[in-house]
Amino acid sequence: MNRRLCLARRPAGKLSATDLALIDEPVPVPGPGEVLVRNTWLSIDPSIRIRLAATTPDGYLPPLRPGDALTGLALGIVAETRNPDYALGDLVSHTLGYREYAVVGTCAQTIGGYGAPARIDTGGLPPQWFLGPLGSAGLTAYVGLVEILELTAADTVWVSSAAGAVGALAAQLAALRGATVLGSAGSPEKVAYLRDELGIAAFDYHAPALAESLADLAPTGIDAYFDNVGGDHLTAALDALRPAGRIALCGAVSGYDGSTPPGPPNLFTMVAKGLRMRGFRAGSFTRLQERMRDEIADHLAAGRLVHRESVFDGIEQAATALTAMLAGATTGKTLCRLA
Amino acid sequence: MNRRLCLARRPAGKLSATDLALIDEPVPVPGPGEVLVRNTWLSIDPSIRIRLAATTPDGYLPPLRPGDALTGLALGIVAETRNPDYALGDLVSHTLGYREYAVVGTCAQTIGGYGAPARIDTGGLPPQWFLGPLGSAGLTAYVGLVEILELTAADTVWVSSAAGAVGALAAQLAALRGATVLGSAGSPEKVAYLRDELGIAAFDYHAPALAESLADLAPTGIDAYFDNVGGDHLTAALDALRPAGRIALCGAVSGYDGSTPPGPPNLFTMVAKGLRMRGFRAGSFTRLQERMRDEIADHLAAGRLVHRESVFDGIEQAATALTAMLAGATTGKTLCRLA
Repeated sequence: MNRRLCLARRPAGKLSATDLALIDEPVPVPGPGEVLVRNTWLSIDPSIRIRLAATTPDGYLPPLRPGDALTGLALGIVAETRNPDYALGDLVSHTLGYREYAVVGTCAQTIGGYGAPARIDTGGLPPQWFLGPLGSAGLTAYVGLVEILELTAADTVWVSSAAGAVGALAAQLAALRGATVLGSAGSPEKVAYLRDELGIAAFDYHAPALAESLADLAPTGIDAYFDNVGGDHLTAALDALRPAGRIALCGAVSGYDGSTPPGPPNLFTMVAKGLRMRGFRAGSFTRLQERMRDEIADHLAAGRLVHRESVFDGIEQAATALTAMLAGATTGKTLCRLA
Repeated sequence: MNRRLCLARRPAGKLSATDLALIDEPVPVPGPGEVLVRNTWLSIDPSIRIRLAATTPDGYLPPLRPGDALTGLALGIVAETRNPDYALGDLVSHTLGYREYAVVGTCAQTIGGYGAPARIDTGGLPPQWFLGPLGSAGLTAYVGLVEILELTAADTVWVSSAAGAVGALAAQLAALRGATVLGSAGSPEKVAYLRDELGIAAFDYHAPALAESLADLAPTGIDAYFDNVGGDHLTAALDALRPAGRIALCGAVSGYDGSTPPGPPNLFTMVAKGLRMRGFRAGSFTRLQERMRDEIADHLAAGRLVHRESVFDGIEQAATALTAMLAGATTGKTLCRLA
């Protein structure tokens, strides 16, 4: 049998594990051109929360319906193949996570711009890194800094959710590129992790007020903001940015729990200060994947980049992994490992 | 005597002429390096409303205090000179409008990035055009389209407040550059003006809903939005923009009347669709002034560009001119002509 994590009922506010249910089905059978993949690693990402609401933002993927299996990036082994491009035992990444087995084809369902299953040569590196620093999280951090913020060594940049999968990479990559970096996170433990293990100036966004924390760490303001949170964080960034500052809108986890918080009340400061803001999804920038992998793999190999994983074992833990990550209880890249 | 229009009391909501007062003072005396200018044309612009509130957005000019004279772009004749760079009778533009006489120097108070008084050679054109299509309004429209939106002939662009000084220029310049243009305005008369005199597809933002009007005129969405309004207009634009769309934040007149409306609730669509938004003030782009003047003067001379003025006569009418313009009762460039 194949177990898939499905939406049981739409969450009201914070996602609870009981909003999700593991459903059994027969292991699916690949058709012509398709392959059956036995998943080995599931990427647990905040953005799936968006699709659990009854409506999704314009331009985004449609909502899941109760009964639908969740989707997400995953790694797996080809267990059956009806496509000559894939051999038994190949390691592939694809977008049908949150299940033990998936049938994927050359026109597989795509998430966030990612296409058909991609064969991965790990080169001896841990395979799950290709869901993290060498995969989607790495590309998101890299694109946000390099393409969207056009970061330079002269910049002071604030990264929110800096202890998360994308934020920790963005904060460290920015520092490695010579920028002055501040990171924010939601607990004293995460702040200590950022300061002591990542070497990033950091503050807890709960207290004192964001504006005060920013003013303490960057008394003359910031040049760039890497936004993973939205809401009050974005408002504080607009106030703290210096003229001609830039904002990369990567995520808005503060708004994922079903609410649609009003936008920042101080958006007019973009006119006053000539600010730029740009939203992006890494999937639109896969042309940069090789460059990103070269840079990040190099840093990892040299020990210049700290990478932490929060690993949950078994498909039974996938719901817990997701709710824990959305509640801010995990650090670094959150993963679910299947036997 | 010199009459200046001053802030009498902070407006509560909509600006009323009684919030302003004409105050007499002796004609000021220029010091070394300064000149006395007798103003002949005052530019009546919506943005001065921002400075009548008790606080201004971060990065903007400070609020005026009750008793302070309003400031704004103006044209005038040098009536007395203690600066060898300026001769009696020179026509200059400067930033101390809303008064009959002004003393300006080489380090004159600046508004929106505009600097010291600039001598103007009209080349036989109406002088007030150098406050309108060949001045700040022209530069604002030009910069918004060319630098901020990077408009191409393939684009469908929406211009709000399209019957206003900046909007009418932006809409026409965009059409002249080959783009598909929609304009919005706040009355049937203005919509008729846009359609019949400017040849721009147009709609009244009061009814039906913005989203419907946009869908009628641009059923497959828009590529670019030139925002003069903010609020619900910006929200509608975010929804209507196609992937990789761009927004130029030029003004937000919907928020000037003392309120700070919440930002758009759908800002996350910038992530979903990979949108770009950039605020600007023309004063940061004076390097483009000559290019702008060449292009717009050429269109004006060839009769390809319609320019309408709403002219009020006498400093006694300056308060009426400003309140009328903020209430949407004027079309094109609003000016106050002094004898």
